[in-house]
Amino acid sequence: MKIILIGASGTLGQAVANELGQRHEIVRVGRSSGDLRVDITDSASIKALFEQTGPFDALVSAAGKVHFGALAEMGEAEFAIGLKDKLMGQVNLVLIGSRYANDGASFTLTTGILSDDPIRFGSSASMVNAGVEGFVRSAALELPRGQRINAVSPNVLVESMTGYAPYFRGFKPVSAADAALGFARSVEGAQTGQVYRIW
Amino acid sequence: MKIILIGASGTLGQAVANELGQRHEIVRVGRSSGDLRVDITDSASIKALFEQTGPFDALVSAAGKVHFGALAEMGEAEFAIGLKDKLMGQVNLVLIGSRYANDGASFTLTTGILSDDPIRFGSSASMVNAGVEGFVRSAALELPRGQRINAVSPNVLVESMTGYAPYFRGFKPVSAADAALGFARSVEGAQTGQVYRIW
Ligand SMILES: NC(=O)c1ccc[n+]([C@@H]2O[C@H](COP(=O)([O-])OP(=O)(O)OC[C@H]3O[C@@H](n4cnc5c(N)ncnc54)[C@H](OP(=O)(O)O)[C@@H]3O)[C@@H](O)[C@H]2O)c1
Ligand SMILES: NC(=O)c1ccc[n+]([C@@H]2O[C@H](COP(=O)([O-])OP(=O)(O)OC[C@H]3O[C@@H](n4cnc5c(N)ncnc54)[C@H](OP(=O)(O)O)[C@@H]3O)[C@@H](O)[C@H]2O)c1
Repeated sequence: MKIILIGASGTLGQAVANELGQRHEIVRVGRSSGDLRVDITDSASIKALFEQTGPFDALVSAAGKVHFGALAEMGEAEFAIGLKDKLMGQVNLVLIGSRYANDGASFTLTTGILSDDPIRFGSSASMVNAGVEGFVRSAALELPRGQRINAVSPNVLVESMTGYAPYFRGFKPVSAADAALGFARSVEGAQTGQVYRIW
Repeated sequence: MKIILIGASGTLGQAVANELGQRHEIVRVGRSSGDLRVDITDSASIKALFEQTGPFDALVSAAGKVHFGALAEMGEAEFAIGLKDKLMGQVNLVLIGSRYANDGASFTLTTGILSDDPIRFGSSASMVNAGVEGFVRSAALELPRGQRINAVSPNVLVESMTGYAPYFRGFKPVSAADAALGFARSVEGAQTGQVYRIW
């Protein structure tokens, strides 16, 4: 399969490249690194990316930013970051990418445990992750030509605990390699509209 | 209790007013009708509303628009409608309203069955409803002064089946009066971070 991997240089993306790269051709994409570049917050940039990739069999997004902060200090501007990046960035990869994708191609987006299991400072992450999951369940009904869509919702990653531990006390982190298995399940399996929880 | 009811003139809002109005003071708010006016898509308008209401014990939102349409015909602009109105409109009612609300006040937002149970043309509704529910679970952890927040997720309403029936075949509609009970559970109960599914 030809797999477009957005966020290939990231903590999660590297593990996904290791897992899927064993069996498939990976096109590594990032904002400032990779075989190709994209800014997922910009539809024109997404379109330009697919003009370069041409048809593909799977798109995996391991990108997506949200703002973390105390609820009392967050307003429209702070929530807008996650809406534009992790939510609509990933949604636009599907809306635009679907036209370029092969029959039967799959889309796999990244959410995270906070959609189900909230923490302090995570209100935007919880909102955005849950929104992506709602989109995935629904878009699965309407994607054309046998195309599929799923999300992977990882727990906090072992590799990210240096920075994140104080916010995730008591959460049992998973390795990025284990989280990457969720992407293999989505890309190489046959299900659609699912959220693979790696907890 | 003094309850601010946004969307009081609507199909759902009227039923909520009937249920809660039996025991509480209801301030009826709408975009073009009611005791007071607000446009929830506009933060300045929300702020002006609370300057007029003064302190309150509960806010109920029975408002919120999303765009319905075929996934293949939807782009950023169509998704932006629901993000600005039903998602951030309701979130901003909480972010801004929390400062005006009394200790122990509750916020109750409206989502809908499509967050869990998708239909064709409903990808924005599924995304937005799920996003509101994610926000509710998380904001419950951080609201100050004993304030609470819940969502009510009604099935399609009996009263709306004239227009909606073709999209909701096989769904068993609930009465607006039954959906209104979910708002009473939230406002008059003690739970927080919950989604009351009225299905
Ligand atoms: N880390 C965790 O513990 C964890 C747990 C659960 C979920 N997640 C989610 O997993 C995803 C990846 O997290 P991560 O920790 O692996 O992040 P990361 O290490 O910061 O990597 C982010 C990757 O995304 C790319 N990227 C960032 N913004 C982009 C944009 N606007 N357009 C295109 N590419 C962009 C970066 O490319 P460049 O390097 O080229 O700029 C990089 O490859 C995020 O959605 C995160 O919320 C992470
Ligand atoms: N109807 C259903 O079957 C159903 C099922 C599940 C969930 N829901 C959800 O329940 C909510 C209410 O639905 P409904 O059918 O009762 O709607 P509706 O009958 O159209 O009523 C909408 C109400 O919201 C107000 N409103 C609309 N836009 C507003 C804005 N920007 N700012 C402030 N107020 C605004 C309207 O005020 P004015 O009249 O003054 O303009 C009206 O009072 C929606 O979020 C809907 O998605 C509905």
